[in-house]
Amino acid sequence: MKRVLLTGATGFIGRHSVPPLVAAGFEVHAVSSTPQRPAAGITRWHHADLLMAGAVDRLVEAAAPSHILHLAWCATPGEFWTSPLNLPWVQASIGLLRAFAEHDGQRFVGAGSCAEYQITDADCAERVTPLRPSTLYGSAKHAFHSVLEGFAPGRLSAAWGRVFHLYGPSEHPDRLVPSVIRSLLSGREAHCTAGTQIRDFLHVQDVADAFVAMLRSDVEGAVNIASGEPVAVGSVVTRIGHALAAEPLIRLGARPMPSQDPPRLTASVARIRDEVGWRPALTLDRGLADTIAWWRSEQARVGRSTAGRGA
Amino acid sequence: MKRVLLTGATGFIGRHSVPPLVAAGFEVHAVSSTPQRPAAGITRWHHADLLMAGAVDRLVEAAAPSHILHLAWCATPGEFWTSPLNLPWVQASIGLLRAFAEHDGQRFVGAGSCAEYQITDADCAERVTPLRPSTLYGSAKHAFHSVLEGFAPGRLSAAWGRVFHLYGPSEHPDRLVPSVIRSLLSGREAHCTAGTQIRDFLHVQDVADAFVAMLRSDVEGAVNIASGEPVAVGSVVTRIGHALAAEPLIRLGARPMPSQDPPRLTASVARIRDEVGWRPALTLDRGLADTIAWWRSEQARVGRSTAGRGA
Repeated sequence: MKRVLLTGATGFIGRHSVPPLVAAGFEVHAVSSTPQRPAAGITRWHHADLLMAGAVDRLVEAAAPSHILHLAWCATPGEFWTSPLNLPWVQASIGLLRAFAEHDGQRFVGAGSCAEYQITDADCAERVTPLRPSTLYGSAKHAFHSVLEGFAPGRLSAAWGRVFHLYGPSEHPDRLVPSVIRSLLSGREAHCTAGTQIRDFLHVQDVADAFVAMLRSDVEGAVNIASGEPVAVGSVVTRIGHALAAEPLIRLGARPMPSQDPPRLTASVARIRDEVGWRPALTLDRGLADTIAWWRSEQARVGRSTAGRGA
Repeated sequence: MKRVLLTGATGFIGRHSVPPLVAAGFEVHAVSSTPQRPAAGITRWHHADLLMAGAVDRLVEAAAPSHILHLAWCATPGEFWTSPLNLPWVQASIGLLRAFAEHDGQRFVGAGSCAEYQITDADCAERVTPLRPSTLYGSAKHAFHSVLEGFAPGRLSAAWGRVFHLYGPSEHPDRLVPSVIRSLLSGREAHCTAGTQIRDFLHVQDVADAFVAMLRSDVEGAVNIASGEPVAVGSVVTRIGHALAAEPLIRLGARPMPSQDPPRLTASVARIRDEVGWRPALTLDRGLADTIAWWRSEQARVGRSTAGRGA
């Protein structure tokens, strides 16, 4: 029996990870810091704040997992880049790894970030691009990766998925894609930067699928999770405008470029394609259409709910 | 008042750090995991095992330091490279940093290692050489450095001294320099590798002085602590043989080269020389003579002690 302990199970990637984990034959033990109701695919919810002393040891003992998919981290938009909570998350992640090794865990996969790489004009490649983060979040993710890479050999099997830019249903409403969709659905102008930044966007369901593919594989070390298809941020915004027939509401250049924003941040996908054997299922246009449909249904749901309250 | 919390105070570098700290005007609060008797220069001993839950918080609260010189880590010769204790040392070091910041600490200096660098034929330079450790010890030191580098800006002043090869009085007797000296002093052959490895050797008193100079300075980030004068290991051994007029007892090539030993591991010292304004006080010959004198006095002391017991 393969039993996975899924941390960050209620988060953006975590909630999309349960169906592919179940499809891959895992018994899913999910962790949340708040009590959860039973949910499809989840054999057992564990209620734990991983930052509390002793929590990770009790959790690993209670769940006795053969696999860990560790997605939990501080993630509040706008805050996580500089939050001092990045430090206890490194400590807790190391504690989780220690407890897992002590309980003869087999395979550990964790969520890293493109923010671990030095800013470069080339595609970030796992074994080539220097790791020189420019943010506390990137430094903290890189720190845990360094521990994982040094500790795993001879003790357990481990990999580290470096996530680039993701979007999709249930993303925080203030993030780029949801904020543009919400503006246009409401008939408001979407005020954006010039949008010249080149990024790698991947739908969250593809990100979650990639993590599960990594968990099932025996790939070791850091692996970029990305589409391998660079796109300008402005093009993403324009595609949303086109899909909603609302191009005139797009205002590229209405907001200044963030000073720290690198002009290009893109991924080499050779490892995940050739060593994990994984490719995205959704094109950008298909993924954006899916996300727009989700926000339409959200607005309809909220509308019904408001109407219900008014009645 | 400048008050420094000195961790690893009973260790190889730590015990040599107290005199220069006192000379620099610091009130020294020293930490040891075993109870200590009062010692010259130490205002207060704190008895704490930094790896115990809550220990670093209680320690920082009790000592209320303005400065921290963090030297403690797992250091058992032969074991520390791969010891799982490297993980709790990263966790404890992060905890120390968090507690220090919460108590408005001013300046934090910690001990890093040349093992953080990728193996290269060039001098390791702090801002140039890639950080790709090949050991768990190097990975763990690098992990904490990454956290320190991401966390410090805007919160506190911090630097990280990367130690290369050191030697001197009270080094563990199984290490290279003491083992050769002890063999030759006893009239036994010293069996060594071919000794072609190029290294940077620095006397432990110079290493300790360099840490204190860094603590007093406002330099930020990683700084190599080294002599800047590469030397073959075989030359170090031969110098000891010469100083003891025992060259015939030196057997270079009698032992195989360790398979993991890089042919060259040397340091750029531009930062510590130009930005900290520090240079070594002891030449290699002077430092070896000092170390030989210490081992002679140790043997005499042990001899007297044995004679005393026999009487």
